[in-house]
Amino acid sequence: MASAGARVPRLVLVGLGALGGGSAVLLLKPGQKPALPTEPGRSDDALPLVSYSAPDRFSGGIAQPTTKWDSNWDQRAPTSLVEPPKGLSEAELKDHAPYQESLSKAKAKARRHLILIRHGQYQLDGATDEQRVLTELGRQQAALTGAQLRRLGLPYTAIIRSSMSRALETSDIIHRELAEAAPPVSTSDLLREGAPIPPEPRLRHWQPGPRRFYEDGPRIEAAFRRFVHRAAPDQERDSYEIVVCHANVIRYFVCRALQLPPEAWLRFSLRHASLTWLTVLPNGRVKLDFMGDAGFMPPEAMTTT
Amino acid sequence: MASAGARVPRLVLVGLGALGGGSAVLLLKPGQKPALPTEPGRSDDALPLVSYSAPDRFSGGIAQPTTKWDSNWDQRAPTSLVEPPKGLSEAELKDHAPYQESLSKAKAKARRHLILIRHGQYQLDGATDEQRVLTELGRQQAALTGAQLRRLGLPYTAIIRSSMSRALETSDIIHRELAEAAPPVSTSDLLREGAPIPPEPRLRHWQPGPRRFYEDGPRIEAAFRRFVHRAAPDQERDSYEIVVCHANVIRYFVCRALQLPPEAWLRFSLRHASLTWLTVLPNGRVKLDFMGDAGFMPPEAMTTT
Repeated sequence: MASAGARVPRLVLVGLGALGGGSAVLLLKPGQKPALPTEPGRSDDALPLVSYSAPDRFSGGIAQPTTKWDSNWDQRAPTSLVEPPKGLSEAELKDHAPYQESLSKAKAKARRHLILIRHGQYQLDGATDEQRVLTELGRQQAALTGAQLRRLGLPYTAIIRSSMSRALETSDIIHRELAEAAPPVSTSDLLREGAPIPPEPRLRHWQPGPRRFYEDGPRIEAAFRRFVHRAAPDQERDSYEIVVCHANVIRYFVCRALQLPPEAWLRFSLRHASLTWLTVLPNGRVKLDFMGDAGFMPPEAMTTT
Repeated sequence: MASAGARVPRLVLVGLGALGGGSAVLLLKPGQKPALPTEPGRSDDALPLVSYSAPDRFSGGIAQPTTKWDSNWDQRAPTSLVEPPKGLSEAELKDHAPYQESLSKAKAKARRHLILIRHGQYQLDGATDEQRVLTELGRQQAALTGAQLRRLGLPYTAIIRSSMSRALETSDIIHRELAEAAPPVSTSDLLREGAPIPPEPRLRHWQPGPRRFYEDGPRIEAAFRRFVHRAAPDQERDSYEIVVCHANVIRYFVCRALQLPPEAWLRFSLRHASLTWLTVLPNGRVKLDFMGDAGFMPPEAMTTT
């Protein structure tokens, strides 16, 4: 019986003595090259290892996490910002008052709110980026989103937008709607649309060539590292940054910021000009306040393509 | 230097020859009992294994998925619904016309839209569930959400609600607002609020005892399995089910439905009476259309506690 799950032959479970009631299943044996069917465009040495569908996780006891939150994911924990005095043991460092004081001063104090906005609907049939401008509906969506931001009435600190036409246009309309509440604007090529990492599961109708991933992957990761991180220690007040960019970029940011498997990005959908809100707390925790909020638009303006 | 990441001693990486540019890092050696500090309330044999913070994922090549989508996660793929004729090899089954026809008929045709709604704001100081009724604002939120559903104008097929007071009350207000568009209502104890799985990272101000997880975990998992799955093969039309329940339940459902590590549920936030939309496609794929949409409310009605 060839069930979908049986495509991956049953492999010996190894190294999971400590797994307990956890959900991760390791499918490879150390040193073993498994005889899995090679999928087109996917090489043998990049096989998925873990599944979180976890049908037997509740056979007994309390289900336990099998993944670990990395609290220094952005390399901005105080210990990453302050160089310790040389030649001291960990115990000595603990008693080293000036070092401990520097660590304490290197703690972030403020929250960073990142308001990620997908551009409005655009002309899909344009040959160049310049021709892929917003549709009439796309301009309305951008205006509705700008009006919603104005209604929220927050002390916005920056608008950062991708350099693609549809993002520039969306950002300009939002800026206009914000009127006197509009913060300074900057533009980044890092935020342009692209293919961040091959999605899992893969989609039949979206299969970019390997070169797209090769080029876009590290560039979108670089965008993540540039724009998503905890506040600097000298940031006194919570910031509210508006980032106008693209569906793939935003979905990848959400997975990375929440430390979810990044290949899950295509399981999320995003409506045009919708709001996605990430908050980075001073201790490095990240929460997703909401994703793809377009509830302020009339239903006929809610589109994804 | 004691960085946050250094809390977990560096362990030998094993069994990862096939990992390539992937992001998962296995922290345990087979058979090795690692000398990690035991955190309070967490036993040694339930240690987290994997981190997706992935600082070196882009050192070369194309980043590749390290997790696998389980397309039969709900045990409703045709091969799970149809018993194969006995005593035949896989090759023989492939040529077995009646079996293949049965499989083909067992394919889902319709989409299941699950509209998950958190209850409105409620009296936190009530001693019993019956006393934790909606606040005046909570009733307004529920009415706004009902009005938004009516505005969306979809052919709603069911309202299913948790049996807790605040969910019943929210659901009744939504039902009233939907007026003639209101579908049949049912109530489930499985959907009551609870502690699904210890969150990672843990929160200082939310530390339920082990018994909460022990009792609530499998019950909320049972709710997931009862309400979240692909359509039955005989479902002809897309369904639109309104599920009125609770923040923890909804966040856990989202993680489970998207096959994300379930312990990530507390990285998501949910506003009162907000809409979270999951679509289960006929092939078992799941997409999150949006999460925590409350954009249709005036800003002063947007609350989480």
